[in-house]
Amino acid sequence: MGFFDDLQDRIEKVDSVVSVGLDADLDRIPEHLRDEDLPRWAFNRRIIDATHEHAAAYKPNAAFYEDEDGWRSLRETIAYAHGKDVPVLLDAKRADIGNTTRQYANLLDDADAITVNPYMGRDSIQPFLAREDKGVFVLCRTSNPGSADLQSLELASGEPLYERVAALCDLWNENDNVGLVVGATGPEELEDLREQVPDLPFLVPGVGAQGGDAEAAVEYGLADGVGLVNSSRGIIFAGEDQGEHFDKAAGQAAKRLKERLNQYR
Amino acid sequence: MGFFDDLQDRIEKVDSVVSVGLDADLDRIPEHLRDEDLPRWAFNRRIIDATHEHAAAYKPNAAFYEDEDGWRSLRETIAYAHGKDVPVLLDAKRADIGNTTRQYANLLDDADAITVNPYMGRDSIQPFLAREDKGVFVLCRTSNPGSADLQSLELASGEPLYERVAALCDLWNENDNVGLVVGATGPEELEDLREQVPDLPFLVPGVGAQGGDAEAAVEYGLADGVGLVNSSRGIIFAGEDQGEHFDKAAGQAAKRLKERLNQYR
Repeated sequence: MGFFDDLQDRIEKVDSVVSVGLDADLDRIPEHLRDEDLPRWAFNRRIIDATHEHAAAYKPNAAFYEDEDGWRSLRETIAYAHGKDVPVLLDAKRADIGNTTRQYANLLDDADAITVNPYMGRDSIQPFLAREDKGVFVLCRTSNPGSADLQSLELASGEPLYERVAALCDLWNENDNVGLVVGATGPEELEDLREQVPDLPFLVPGVGAQGGDAEAAVEYGLADGVGLVNSSRGIIFAGEDQGEHFDKAAGQAAKRLKERLNQYR
Repeated sequence: MGFFDDLQDRIEKVDSVVSVGLDADLDRIPEHLRDEDLPRWAFNRRIIDATHEHAAAYKPNAAFYEDEDGWRSLRETIAYAHGKDVPVLLDAKRADIGNTTRQYANLLDDADAITVNPYMGRDSIQPFLAREDKGVFVLCRTSNPGSADLQSLELASGEPLYERVAALCDLWNENDNVGLVVGATGPEELEDLREQVPDLPFLVPGVGAQGGDAEAAVEYGLADGVGLVNSSRGIIFAGEDQGEHFDKAAGQAAKRLKERLNQYR
């Protein structure tokens, strides 16, 4: 079973395409958890308990775990999510050359899928692609303002760079394990890309804190019903002002997003 | 004093533009160090002792430190290099959006410079650029086979993508802290890029294990004498078959590369 088969099962089981972004920013973790041995893990555990019934996947962003305690917290978090039968997509945006990118691919020993950056080309992500049972989401069209700097550049062949990236990813999808990261901030781009690569599931960030279009995210983000729409801060910090009851608000926010997205499925 | 001023001082002091890549691959660390509490730190300490007189900079690649003990090893390594007055460039190839990339920029609290990936555009690397005293090397033309997949694509305006990246980096260099990563595997590209952006120092990987052209790396890699030519495995594993004396071979390899490059300075 590949990652996207597992994801499909999960989506059907919980009737949800919500990815919950575990961006466990130490500065925003509730006061009462900061004295714990591993505050990020303590936070994530409560978030997982409160949201897993609505989560198709968890998406920890590696940026929030890049220190000694961070890696311990991340490993505990992944194991705990697995205990709840929820796949974990590590948002790492990695890629490098030869022996180095093989090293990065070890991040997939724990996680079920990863995000990677295409700028260095196919061999830079090959060790990820080669893991047949794991998912590889390649950055294609991101949702930040500066994404136009490179991604929208018009090629001599007439299409913008990000469309070429989508076409390359379609070629690189020999193991049926490739997806694309496509922001919800450009609904017409989502539509065009879905038409161009009908088989690649999308991970759509930018719904929630970034204010993207939920309808387009669902209508075009899913390939045969499989794909993910992510919200991070909009879920995990929904109860930021509610002290020890922060997790209840997170659970409600995940449920609301699930229901909002399910209107369009 | 910015990073490139510090680097210039260091280059002059040791008469070297050699960057020693600390890719402390656990599988290749000498047997007798594997029982140490932190084998990678034990290895790096001996490498630094043996090579620092020939090192303009150390360049640990983050891929080899992405676990609990890894981050401890990396932090010890950076502190130790600083104790020898050698600046440290963290080869992390990071970039992300908004609050996440701000988090990644904390990697510069310890390191003096970092490598970043331009695919997501200016705002994705802005928190790095904003650290005036730190160096930011942007991936431009990398030395791996697949680099052509995106970087060589011809834009509608006529130039390849990597030249546009160089032009953007020139614009983004408001704090005189931007450099480019340009592989030594394409000497004529190095020459063209040097002409295009005369003020940006290059980090040139691909000399050594990757067999790039040392003369072109020096002739075009330096901007006003400032820049770095990196070798990783060619130095740190030069004594791989020499057991406890591995470090002596590493020191000799660093000295040889320094002298080889100095022929062209």
